[in-house]
Amino acid sequence: MSMVSAGASQIGRSLPRLEGRAKVTGRAEYVHNLRLPGMLYGKIFRSTVAHGRIRRIDTAAARALPGVFRVVTGEDICKVIPNPYYGPAFHDQPILALDKVYHVGQPVAAVLAADPHVAEQAVQLIVAEYDELPAVYDEVEAVTSKAVVHDELKPAGAFADLKHLQGRKNTNVALDYHLRRGDAEGALAQADHVFEHEFRTQQVMHTPLEPFVSVAEPRENGITIHSASQGPSFVRVEIARLLGWPENKVRIKVPYLGGGFGGKLYIKLEALVAALALIARRPVKIALTMEEQFYQITKHAATLRIKSGVSKDGRITARKCEVWWNGGAFADVGPRVTQKSGFSACGPYDVDNVHIDSYALYTNLPPAGALRGFGIPQLCWAYESHTDMMARALKLDPIEFRRRNLLRDGRPQATGTLVHDTPLEKILDRLAVRLNWGAPFDRGNGTVRRGRGVAIGFKAVISPTTSMAIVNVSADGSATVYVGTVDMGQGSDTAMAQLAGEVLNLPAESITVVHSDTDVTPYDMGTLGSRSLYHMGHAVKTAAEEALAKLRALAREVGLPEGTNVPVAELFRRKYGMQAGNVIGTGSFVPSYTPPEPGTGLTTNVTPFWMAGGAGCELEVDTETGHVRLIKLVNVADAGRQINPRIVETQLSGASIMQLGFTMSERMDFEAGQMTNASLADYKIPGLHDLPRVIENEAVESYEPSGPFGAKGVGETATFAVSPAIANGIEDAVGVRLMQLPLTPEAVYRALRAAHGTPLGEE
Amino acid sequence: MSMVSAGASQIGRSLPRLEGRAKVTGRAEYVHNLRLPGMLYGKIFRSTVAHGRIRRIDTAAARALPGVFRVVTGEDICKVIPNPYYGPAFHDQPILALDKVYHVGQPVAAVLAADPHVAEQAVQLIVAEYDELPAVYDEVEAVTSKAVVHDELKPAGAFADLKHLQGRKNTNVALDYHLRRGDAEGALAQADHVFEHEFRTQQVMHTPLEPFVSVAEPRENGITIHSASQGPSFVRVEIARLLGWPENKVRIKVPYLGGGFGGKLYIKLEALVAALALIARRPVKIALTMEEQFYQITKHAATLRIKSGVSKDGRITARKCEVWWNGGAFADVGPRVTQKSGFSACGPYDVDNVHIDSYALYTNLPPAGALRGFGIPQLCWAYESHTDMMARALKLDPIEFRRRNLLRDGRPQATGTLVHDTPLEKILDRLAVRLNWGAPFDRGNGTVRRGRGVAIGFKAVISPTTSMAIVNVSADGSATVYVGTVDMGQGSDTAMAQLAGEVLNLPAESITVVHSDTDVTPYDMGTLGSRSLYHMGHAVKTAAEEALAKLRALAREVGLPEGTNVPVAELFRRKYGMQAGNVIGTGSFVPSYTPPEPGTGLTTNVTPFWMAGGAGCELEVDTETGHVRLIKLVNVADAGRQINPRIVETQLSGASIMQLGFTMSERMDFEAGQMTNASLADYKIPGLHDLPRVIENEAVESYEPSGPFGAKGVGETATFAVSPAIANGIEDAVGVRLMQLPLTPEAVYRALRAAHGTPLGEE
Repeated sequence: MSMVSAGASQIGRSLPRLEGRAKVTGRAEYVHNLRLPGMLYGKIFRSTVAHGRIRRIDTAAARALPGVFRVVTGEDICKVIPNPYYGPAFHDQPILALDKVYHVGQPVAAVLAADPHVAEQAVQLIVAEYDELPAVYDEVEAVTSKAVVHDELKPAGAFADLKHLQGRKNTNVALDYHLRRGDAEGALAQADHVFEHEFRTQQVMHTPLEPFVSVAEPRENGITIHSASQGPSFVRVEIARLLGWPENKVRIKVPYLGGGFGGKLYIKLEALVAALALIARRPVKIALTMEEQFYQITKHAATLRIKSGVSKDGRITARKCEVWWNGGAFADVGPRVTQKSGFSACGPYDVDNVHIDSYALYTNLPPAGALRGFGIPQLCWAYESHTDMMARALKLDPIEFRRRNLLRDGRPQATGTLVHDTPLEKILDRLAVRLNWGAPFDRGNGTVRRGRGVAIGFKAVISPTTSMAIVNVSADGSATVYVGTVDMGQGSDTAMAQLAGEVLNLPAESITVVHSDTDVTPYDMGTLGSRSLYHMGHAVKTAAEEALAKLRALAREVGLPEGTNVPVAELFRRKYGMQAGNVIGTGSFVPSYTPPEPGTGLTTNVTPFWMAGGAGCELEVDTETGHVRLIKLVNVADAGRQINPRIVETQLSGASIMQLGFTMSERMDFEAGQMTNASLADYKIPGLHDLPRVIENEAVESYEPSGPFGAKGVGETATFAVSPAIANGIEDAVGVRLMQLPLTPEAVYRALRAAHGTPLGEE
Repeated sequence: MSMVSAGASQIGRSLPRLEGRAKVTGRAEYVHNLRLPGMLYGKIFRSTVAHGRIRRIDTAAARALPGVFRVVTGEDICKVIPNPYYGPAFHDQPILALDKVYHVGQPVAAVLAADPHVAEQAVQLIVAEYDELPAVYDEVEAVTSKAVVHDELKPAGAFADLKHLQGRKNTNVALDYHLRRGDAEGALAQADHVFEHEFRTQQVMHTPLEPFVSVAEPRENGITIHSASQGPSFVRVEIARLLGWPENKVRIKVPYLGGGFGGKLYIKLEALVAALALIARRPVKIALTMEEQFYQITKHAATLRIKSGVSKDGRITARKCEVWWNGGAFADVGPRVTQKSGFSACGPYDVDNVHIDSYALYTNLPPAGALRGFGIPQLCWAYESHTDMMARALKLDPIEFRRRNLLRDGRPQATGTLVHDTPLEKILDRLAVRLNWGAPFDRGNGTVRRGRGVAIGFKAVISPTTSMAIVNVSADGSATVYVGTVDMGQGSDTAMAQLAGEVLNLPAESITVVHSDTDVTPYDMGTLGSRSLYHMGHAVKTAAEEALAKLRALAREVGLPEGTNVPVAELFRRKYGMQAGNVIGTGSFVPSYTPPEPGTGLTTNVTPFWMAGGAGCELEVDTETGHVRLIKLVNVADAGRQINPRIVETQLSGASIMQLGFTMSERMDFEAGQMTNASLADYKIPGLHDLPRVIENEAVESYEPSGPFGAKGVGETATFAVSPAIANGIEDAVGVRLMQLPLTPEAVYRALRAAHGTPLGEE
């Protein structure tokens, strides 16, 4: 029954983002713009030592500064939150330091003032003295170091799979993950060729252009927190836990986000502003500076060791991976990265004998969490560099070598879960076509040499996770969608409106998407890991279907024969005698999941879907300077059925450019735990001149049968393969292999000097 | 299955209001406190003539005042809203005057400025010239007056029953309502006694202590209006109609209200602020002063003529009622008052032959709408004064006379609808007991004389109307209720939490009630006419029951046997592996209703329930001054089953005190359409010293089988009978009968002088 006049299908429509005009006209709401009556600004005093016992904190001068409302230390926090430790996997992070500090930049005290400049000035007047403790910074050293970051592990109570770690003492290993399939050692011993390489990645920052910001507002009977958060439902539960309150006394409201990239997940500033607001009995806002963001959350540096056994005919028969994740001082979601990406350490290859060890390490650096790819870009950097090095050693074409070993649909991934609907081969084919792989290639000459590289990766979605949605049809036939998904630039509002519109046969433009507000929008696990379109998309589709069924029931009730084409508004008028009423559908979705077997890590169902993405590049290397210039970057990805091709395209280009920054220039530099480049003047994110001359993005034709209308997430896919594709291109151009990110001119130059003594062309 | 540990039942709990602490600590949100960035204040320039054609409006001096952002007239409004006429029954009210003005105080222009004082100053600089037109002020004169307020009737398109009025010209009768049952004329001709009296009531004001206030905020793709409104769903639909937008582009948000009493229904300032905000492209706030409220909306003055035929044995055999409602210049909901209260003009009496005519009149006074009782207090004033006068003439005890004629359950009310579950007799009995009716009574002496009076009334609920609710259970077992019902002091949040808690077996304190926000809370017809507890109560109960059914299904799904007592939180953990997810129930309610037959006005089902209330008083009259002092006021009411007895009690005392003001002192005085006492200095609402020494409130034991847990609304019940009970007491004390409200000392004194020549005691 067509309830409204039929329009074009909403699926596959390159509808401009619903919020686009609001953003470019400056009307879109951000927490940064929020001021509340009586609001105080909080500024944070931070640790200057990487590991130490607090001897004393002298706040007298700060308190004496005119205009200062209050100076708060960890002890004050304990008066409103007796056990002020939080974290999504481990309750290891204090709201403000208690007794000890664990990394440079850790919040130690906070100043509240009506004027943020006064608060900042007062922060400068605080003096803290520490007894410094031995510190550890390197993730591999951390395994055996006598410098122990935390005395005892404190896994979050909610997770059964972490319970065995409770109370484990004197270790920096927060979590060790192991997967064993087949007989890797045996197969390695029998392999025709064995290759082993070690790669490293650096610590980097998410750099959301809207820095972290939260405002807490005490209410009678509760608290409202306005936060730039990707996970309002999680924040609600965690704040309720910290305060010992029921969930519904805690309200988390999230307007638009100026980027998140995994940084704004879990508790960031929310616990601190909540505690400060309860202490002050006033609204409190904390907005980090761009510089402070470097101390809030980062991406895991990692050391990755890969060993493969290969048969004469170029088939990988065994693989052993060891990965050490540098989690910094607090675990954040690092243990989940260790596990949930750990099992993908082998890459998208069909290998019968697999041995994976993945370790989440504590060190005395700023904490690391998820960053657009949840560990996969680090893994892919390693395994796709490794793949190319093997191909080169075996004198096989790198695409051909990959093709021989690719995981095909129906074959088991490392965990034993059969791969389905994952067009890895199609991606590789399209990369080859777009790079003109078989055709002659101008390799440059003189001091500028040219090369090409490809890489391919894939990722499981975090499972099992839950999303719920409400779809509310108004009496004039327009509709509202209530979702906890946070639109942080990825276009989720538009996509959800398109999905609901497709079911209800309404143009997406007539659908309003209500922003995250935990008193309003139902539970969602979080906007992360490319899960929203699939999970929330399902919930929205189900809710819209329920609403449609109710509309059809309403049509029957008011005596319309099945199939009558009557506008929705008319149905309501017949039922209620006027423009009144709603039809409300609800939907929830949690995919099926089979937990891995303890010990082996094997399971038949580790993820509801896989996301695959490949990158290819043409580049030139200036051998005199080491400077690498990208001529062309090709991103080919699997997006399932595209709901909005224009948004898919921008997700692919955006993700690849972000990864390009991590590949070419971004690196947090530390000396003895002190970051030496904590500013965007010294920490280089890609600018317009750093972009490839050509970026091509392609979503291959694909369909995820378990996805809503065949869709799957695409927010991370184009991050996976960029780094190794470029490193592979550099070796192709100038014959040197870089084992460590970023691929700076200096690194290339040094490698060239080491290999050739002099720049090419001057030989 | 008890899903949570069983607590005490939530029904019948005198739980303190959930919002009580927020209100007394100043934390409760009101629109008056809302300031938005870039917000402009609007001040209104108003008509100084009662009826006139606008010759010119000179805004030059106002525009020239430094700080004035813009001066807006009706013509400017037309640029954003081409047809700017609104109204719930008739589209007769322009946002700002166009061509003509219809009453003193009508908005003619508006000034916008960032500083409200500048805006106010600029208003004083506007000059308007009018060609005055003949005006009419009296509701009875309006029927035949050559002064016609509106050239043509413009009923709202939505209502089929008003369609026949479309385009009717040159009449002040907006709507004429007629009911005919039996043969009133014939029965009057044959009656042993015939009594005919004419009563009048005055125009009064709602006097919400929070004056009208609205803030409009233009958004990309829509508009948000924060408004002190009792009917956000209606406002949304009406603003969408005015703008020609779909409903979901219009968001109406309502926090707490500082009183409403029917005044804040339908469009008040919302259309004006919306138009101004769209013109200014900035947020616009208008907050009326207490004085301006007198021109916004009032209560109908009325002239009521009642004629009864009575048999020798004191049975009323016939009744003829004519009622003229003074609607002022714009119909507002007056036509509905005319109809929906019109059919109750006979009162709670069992009369076989009924003839009712009820007229909604336009006059050149400020518009009148609903005010706590929807016309019933005016009708009851007349019919219960009439009842007492007949009893006195027949030398029957007034209680006994009423008892003989009361409508019993199962007997047809005037419309033919059978009365059910309406404890009229019980109320009368309890009044008699509480006044010690049979016992000797000290009648005073000298210049101070004492008397007693009783009265009883009843009311149908406005039908058919719709409410919808969502109940959302969080993973820790707390819950949230989404309702459009506006808590304006009546305690609806608390009641809704109790109803949901009763179903879910949760204490009401652990339930959050989300405030009206049309993007969030589903449709509700409006918070009016004592309908919310019944209608929204049903919707909440149904939604909670659906949530409970889903919780039970969840329990079965996770393998718990029926009847297992497992906390809700544990269910969610078993389902989702963590504290995640929600269970969402939705509910809607629209009671059955049979429209009246055209012509006779008869129907078998005019209302789902009846509300009955009686009042009794002991008073003394100072015959030297005419001053009436209430010794005791007794309110006995039917509340069905009481959800929260403490709130019922405050509703009864609050309603009776409000009606006491209308009875004793409040009156808007007009001279040729100019109000002469538009200030709380001159317009007297009850103060502490005007209260009776004793107020007793009693809700009789009753149960509404069609109500949620047996409940029915009680917000208006104690307004019905106060005025006639006091007038009856005055006659009992000093033998004079006042036919017109208010019963001021002057009126009493004049009546005494007219009757006795000199004060009593000086004879």
